[in-house]
Amino acid sequence: MTALSARHEGPRDPYPTRLAEERWLPRQDRIVWSSWRPDAPLTAQQTESFERNGFLILHDLFSEEEVAALRAESAALRSGQRRLAEETLITEAGSDEIRTIFQLPEQSPLFARLARDRRLAGVARFLLGDRVYLHQSRLNYKPGFTGKEFYWHSDFETWHAEDGMPRMRAVSASLLLTDNDALNGPLMLIPGSHRHFIACAGKTPEDHWKFSLKQQDLGVPSQESLTRLVERYGITPAMGKAGSLIFFDCNTMHGSNGNITPFARSNAFFVFNAVSNRLEEPFAAPKPRPAFLAHRGEPDPLTVEIGPLV
Amino acid sequence: MTALSARHEGPRDPYPTRLAEERWLPRQDRIVWSSWRPDAPLTAQQTESFERNGFLILHDLFSEEEVAALRAESAALRSGQRRLAEETLITEAGSDEIRTIFQLPEQSPLFARLARDRRLAGVARFLLGDRVYLHQSRLNYKPGFTGKEFYWHSDFETWHAEDGMPRMRAVSASLLLTDNDALNGPLMLIPGSHRHFIACAGKTPEDHWKFSLKQQDLGVPSQESLTRLVERYGITPAMGKAGSLIFFDCNTMHGSNGNITPFARSNAFFVFNAVSNRLEEPFAAPKPRPAFLAHRGEPDPLTVEIGPLV
Repeated sequence: MTALSARHEGPRDPYPTRLAEERWLPRQDRIVWSSWRPDAPLTAQQTESFERNGFLILHDLFSEEEVAALRAESAALRSGQRRLAEETLITEAGSDEIRTIFQLPEQSPLFARLARDRRLAGVARFLLGDRVYLHQSRLNYKPGFTGKEFYWHSDFETWHAEDGMPRMRAVSASLLLTDNDALNGPLMLIPGSHRHFIACAGKTPEDHWKFSLKQQDLGVPSQESLTRLVERYGITPAMGKAGSLIFFDCNTMHGSNGNITPFARSNAFFVFNAVSNRLEEPFAAPKPRPAFLAHRGEPDPLTVEIGPLV
Repeated sequence: MTALSARHEGPRDPYPTRLAEERWLPRQDRIVWSSWRPDAPLTAQQTESFERNGFLILHDLFSEEEVAALRAESAALRSGQRRLAEETLITEAGSDEIRTIFQLPEQSPLFARLARDRRLAGVARFLLGDRVYLHQSRLNYKPGFTGKEFYWHSDFETWHAEDGMPRMRAVSASLLLTDNDALNGPLMLIPGSHRHFIACAGKTPEDHWKFSLKQQDLGVPSQESLTRLVERYGITPAMGKAGSLIFFDCNTMHGSNGNITPFARSNAFFVFNAVSNRLEEPFAAPKPRPAFLAHRGEPDPLTVEIGPLV
């Protein structure tokens, strides 16, 4: 990996981005980093599906009791009763209502336990073939009626450019805390898109993350590229009942529509990164994003725990 | 109908709106104004479904050739080659691209023929039990990627308040010119909502229509009322292939989510009003909206035509 230290000269970085012009590049990394074995936390078929599509939806993985406990904890965190670190809270424009809480395990023992669960960290460790740590975690709450869209993007593009994540060896897990159907703005994924790295056009300005959390305009593919991807692969909405879990590869193109239905959406979101893939200097930004968005420094590998949460 | 001339004193208007507080009122009008007969342009089952739900989706009603001709005509109208009346064009903010063309039959012989078709005007005449004229018509084009949401509303509430439509005796027909699925922001309808008139809170400002075409904030139900409606009745997305036709009652609550998918949506939209229900003075606005939004004066009843469009 010493080659990476030369990345600012250009040729050795397999995923150059924020360029003068958009480019399609082939993925240089594996998708599933372990060989399947009978004691793996996913079936062979689930593993193969993740490899092919770049995501996997596990329906009704958490029990009603577990979901109820997580929802109660979520409500307590959002109520303002709990002391939370100021910089980890994102409120809606023109309102005090909390929409996102970052650094979730640091602020809630129950969510810390959730992250370590074999159904999350255990699967992540299997998919990434390494011990894993949390690159980012958050609780998302999108109200009904006014839920805004989130435009198409590959997380890895941002994590590589702005956080300095060297390779595609990270996976996201989103646990649905509310039911998601096609109409209330579910996560939409482009199956197969994880095999292409779309190097984006544009130069990252200082403190880009302050704007990109509200609306993403840099680090997103052109309409032409998105059309090509969707014509080739289609779009899959990640629908499921509360308690369903969605894994998706760090480079799977995804987004979500807005939501005027009365049905709010909420999920607990964890990004697992391989300890061997720890962050370096940003590949295409003046300075790294803050720690609540991207854990820097010595990784803290997760101990996997088994059994029900509550 | 002389009672209506006293509407500004209040008690005789069955649908008072733009009030100090929101109110739910029962519908005072029929939904289907004809008795079904074997020669009706809808089956008995379709008629009963419209009566119950307040809408009806007729799949693949127009042939591929008809749809192709209508799409070609639509493209020609939107291209700027055709001379169109300035005030009938709505462009997207920050772009010259035409998103909506009002007074469609006045500007296109093919769309004029479409409006008179038995599958549209014939059905409208049957549902409304009267000769019909066009209250409003338009061609809608919503691009992919940036399609904006349209918030929940009853058309009749606006037409009554701002156009002076006396009673619920009008029906909308939307012919899909593109495929609509659950993800590209289809029309969403609340089945059964047409039986309730939700009198809205708020006072109509001068020239409200200039703003309400871009974003509707007055004349929409409260989140509480929408939640009650949806809990009781649910939401139905009007999905279908190009060539499918959607009829919906003037008082059926509807809206649509935004659309970040690459798939544009386009439809031809006609509002048929019973000639006996012609407009009066607005019931809750300082002055009527312009003619391209609401035909005033002597109704021009449509002659129904039979057979393929092309």
